[in-house]
Amino acid sequence: MPPFAYFAHERDVRVFKAGDVIFSDGDPGDHMFAVLEGDVEIRKGERVLERLTVGGIFGELALIDRTARSATAIAVRDCRLAAVGQQRFAALVQQMPYFALDLMKILADRLRRATAT
Amino acid sequence: MPPFAYFAHERDVRVFKAGDVIFSDGDPGDHMFAVLEGDVEIRKGERVLERLTVGGIFGELALIDRTARSATAIAVRDCRLAAVGQQRFAALVQQMPYFALDLMKILADRLRRATAT
Repeated sequence: MPPFAYFAHERDVRVFKAGDVIFSDGDPGDHMFAVLEGDVEIRKGERVLERLTVGGIFGELALIDRTARSATAIAVRDCRLAAVGQQRFAALVQQMPYFALDLMKILADRLRRATAT
Repeated sequence: MPPFAYFAHERDVRVFKAGDVIFSDGDPGDHMFAVLEGDVEIRKGERVLERLTVGGIFGELALIDRTARSATAIAVRDCRLAAVGQQRFAALVQQMPYFALDLMKILADRLRRATAT
């Protein structure tokens, strides 16, 4: 997956320590995150759905369909994350068609992997 | 899922009889489809991933990431489908941000269901 560089200069940067829960399955969610430093695991119960490193994004489903988190995100190394709220997300989709396309590519990749077996 | 009305007036309309294979897992793909009439099943091996009816769309992954079909699509009733090629798809994403958002919602919904268990 290509690094996701749109968020290199976001102002809302959050820091998590290794082991911290960033969000939990079922939580309400109003931000997506881009990994600026560190590693994050996306887990559903005991299953690791994905491991993300610099340039990876996660938590975007809650912005797209405004429902609760469908998985848990955990910092597996100390992390710096750019947090992107609903308004900024909508502006990116409307003003940068390549953002929308790149995000769709990530969703398509996750969907292909989720239904691969 | 909301009906997907963007394709009500496409010029490239294709007709399939009940039982026809629209595309097969592994095929190269260069069109997505919107159901104008009829029902379509998306299958992976023996598993039915989704059943689509009027307003449903499918086959969009191949346009997003330009890889092969990841599932098989079968007309389960006589169908009329609007076929949308790469160029038209790119124009929709660039000119109609709500198309991109609505498509992301569909992908998000499929992804949530695929990882729900």
